[in-house]
Amino acid sequence: MNLILKGSICYSKSLRELATLEGGYIVCEGGVSRGVFREVPEKYSTFSVADYGESVIIPGLVDLHLHAPQYSYRGLGMDLELLDWLSTHTFPEESRYAELDYADKAYSAFVDNLKRGSTTRAGVFATIHAPATLLLMEKLEHSGLVTLVGKVNMDRNSPDFLREASAQSAYEATRAWIEQSLGKFRNTAPIISPRFVPTCTGELMRGLGELQKEFGLPVQSHLSENRGEIAWVKELHPRAEFYGEVYDSYGLFGGDGVPTIMAHCVWSHGAEEALLRENGVYIAHCPQSNTNLASGIAPIRRFLEGGQRVGLGTDVAGGCHTSIFRAMTDAIQCSKLRWRLVEQNDAPLTVPEAFYLGTIGGGSFFGKVGSFEDGYEFDAVVIDDSPLAATNPLPLEDRLARIIYLSNDSQIRAKYVRGKKV
Amino acid sequence: MNLILKGSICYSKSLRELATLEGGYIVCEGGVSRGVFREVPEKYSTFSVADYGESVIIPGLVDLHLHAPQYSYRGLGMDLELLDWLSTHTFPEESRYAELDYADKAYSAFVDNLKRGSTTRAGVFATIHAPATLLLMEKLEHSGLVTLVGKVNMDRNSPDFLREASAQSAYEATRAWIEQSLGKFRNTAPIISPRFVPTCTGELMRGLGELQKEFGLPVQSHLSENRGEIAWVKELHPRAEFYGEVYDSYGLFGGDGVPTIMAHCVWSHGAEEALLRENGVYIAHCPQSNTNLASGIAPIRRFLEGGQRVGLGTDVAGGCHTSIFRAMTDAIQCSKLRWRLVEQNDAPLTVPEAFYLGTIGGGSFFGKVGSFEDGYEFDAVVIDDSPLAATNPLPLEDRLARIIYLSNDSQIRAKYVRGKKV
Repeated sequence: MNLILKGSICYSKSLRELATLEGGYIVCEGGVSRGVFREVPEKYSTFSVADYGESVIIPGLVDLHLHAPQYSYRGLGMDLELLDWLSTHTFPEESRYAELDYADKAYSAFVDNLKRGSTTRAGVFATIHAPATLLLMEKLEHSGLVTLVGKVNMDRNSPDFLREASAQSAYEATRAWIEQSLGKFRNTAPIISPRFVPTCTGELMRGLGELQKEFGLPVQSHLSENRGEIAWVKELHPRAEFYGEVYDSYGLFGGDGVPTIMAHCVWSHGAEEALLRENGVYIAHCPQSNTNLASGIAPIRRFLEGGQRVGLGTDVAGGCHTSIFRAMTDAIQCSKLRWRLVEQNDAPLTVPEAFYLGTIGGGSFFGKVGSFEDGYEFDAVVIDDSPLAATNPLPLEDRLARIIYLSNDSQIRAKYVRGKKV
Repeated sequence: MNLILKGSICYSKSLRELATLEGGYIVCEGGVSRGVFREVPEKYSTFSVADYGESVIIPGLVDLHLHAPQYSYRGLGMDLELLDWLSTHTFPEESRYAELDYADKAYSAFVDNLKRGSTTRAGVFATIHAPATLLLMEKLEHSGLVTLVGKVNMDRNSPDFLREASAQSAYEATRAWIEQSLGKFRNTAPIISPRFVPTCTGELMRGLGELQKEFGLPVQSHLSENRGEIAWVKELHPRAEFYGEVYDSYGLFGGDGVPTIMAHCVWSHGAEEALLRENGVYIAHCPQSNTNLASGIAPIRRFLEGGQRVGLGTDVAGGCHTSIFRAMTDAIQCSKLRWRLVEQNDAPLTVPEAFYLGTIGGGSFFGKVGSFEDGYEFDAVVIDDSPLAATNPLPLEDRLARIIYLSNDSQIRAKYVRGKKV
């Protein structure tokens, strides 16, 4: 785990500050970055150097929100909105993961794709099926990526073929799955994953809150994605002032050291927005999914200025694409349309800002992750951008912009996670 | 030019009607389609059959609007709006095409890319430089694609390094270029191309209108892309009721058998919208460019219901991507955001509608182009979608949706233009 990479290095120092260095060296000691240097410091002179020449080296990208069983049907049903899309495509497909043979085939394709891409860390939803979820965790562990994986919970408002029989049995199955998976892997760990409020009874959410406390696990779910969904939550929980308060009432909404990711937050505002911030909940911004399902555009500029924690998610298969580079450009593009058409006080996101969101923004959910500064875990992606070559030499910041807008997985030369080449 | 293709065939019959046939045959006689059949009709039984197995065969895609000299810097300057982006990136880069050596290098890369992709026909802007424009036309002719190429006109409000010296000299240079290029090529022809109203004096536009009439040429330009641009046109031409009226007053806005493409039309409405329709002007919808430059979202549903002629454009490099598949998904996604955030009476575009726009929609500018029905010119693209394979067999319509959302150029197996493999 001691090594040095040489190349054209790009990483974020803060939301607005992009650091670039051509022909620079990143030192990795014991899986942790010791920083970026123009020359190799004397004390690291014994470390071996992998020289990637002109290739661009960036921190590994972080996908805060995606659904492994939905990879199989990405690009389908895109003419529907959220709730119709769930019942027409998502639920029937997810029910197939009751069969381990099917899960084996489909999850293999998913993990192969994730490994080939530029993502090094991810928050992943599986299905309600514990055996298939364990299988997915084994495959992800084998990939070398760092992931949090959730057996999904749903015990109401779901079709018979994809519903846990009762809150009690869901609790027991989830508990057993946690006991089987927690501590079993080096890079893969369980995360509490109620699908969303409409599909989870209060009794089940209470049980999940207890499991969270008992095992000290992180939490992931969905929040305020679509106006129809929000109205439905209001019907189901008329006494809750806002959607997020329902999760919060069961200890599933951050605060008290409960690391929590809420995907979407397209329509979060007022008291919900305040509680997200107060509780340090991570917002997984999934712009392509929010576009494909006609949900809307999350107010990311306002969130950032308000001090929210924000990362990016592909939300496969609400989003069709598994690349966080695509999520960066989608985030920029959506922010421009929101600025032009909805709220002229919220300036568009810039390329350096979107790059920050896809690296440190989501990476910080996993600890010191998403940068090459001293002390960060060493996740890196090496990209050969020569197929994108311009007719004139470009500064490194412009080369990075072109990689973000134009590159594809075939241009990835190498990928390192926690100092290990994967 | 007599041949038969066998495969999984998809084409539009109308805006809403997608035709699909697995294991079907398309007959091409003398470069023209004779239709799609379940079995080869007896009278074509001597034609040779190219059997593409399970691969998907679609009509060639049509890019109604892109800038060849901007290919070199796609993906750069995306944090700017139109007028700043023009002065910072576009104008300096376009000025380099005064040098033929540079044009040779840059246009070769552009044409190679266009040839590799799924586009078979395009409306292309070059620069103000006639020699480089002729070079581009030669390269495009050699590619086998069908293109209309414009030497750009600009004689005001442009930097010294990228401005024609006077209306008279611009007229003369354009006339000479038309005489040199018209009728010289089989698949490549000149198109009158004032950049846009702000960069063309009335005298120059009058001259271009005369050249249009004299040589019977088509016209392409830009219209109502950005609100700052529209306000500028209003300042320059205070007596014109709307932007398009300026072109119209010089005979550059359709009508009287003048085939005309106007790119963008993001903010066209009222009298301008009426004149577009009345004059049969083609609207080149360039959703990604309109997003990247924060221009807005064109009201395509309203245009279609109002009987406008609409095709798709990549607008490289306002749009970063050269693929009309990407333009289709961008068009769908933008229409969803417009529906959700701006105008709930304008329903989103569907996948079959976007496919129509990228084939027949723009293709009809070139004649009977964009379908496989009897009498259409035979442009076809063969795509191996097996890398996108789902875990379950999919109906052909769903396979097409995945190709549109997820495929890339590497999956193209063959391309035919006017019956000839290119």
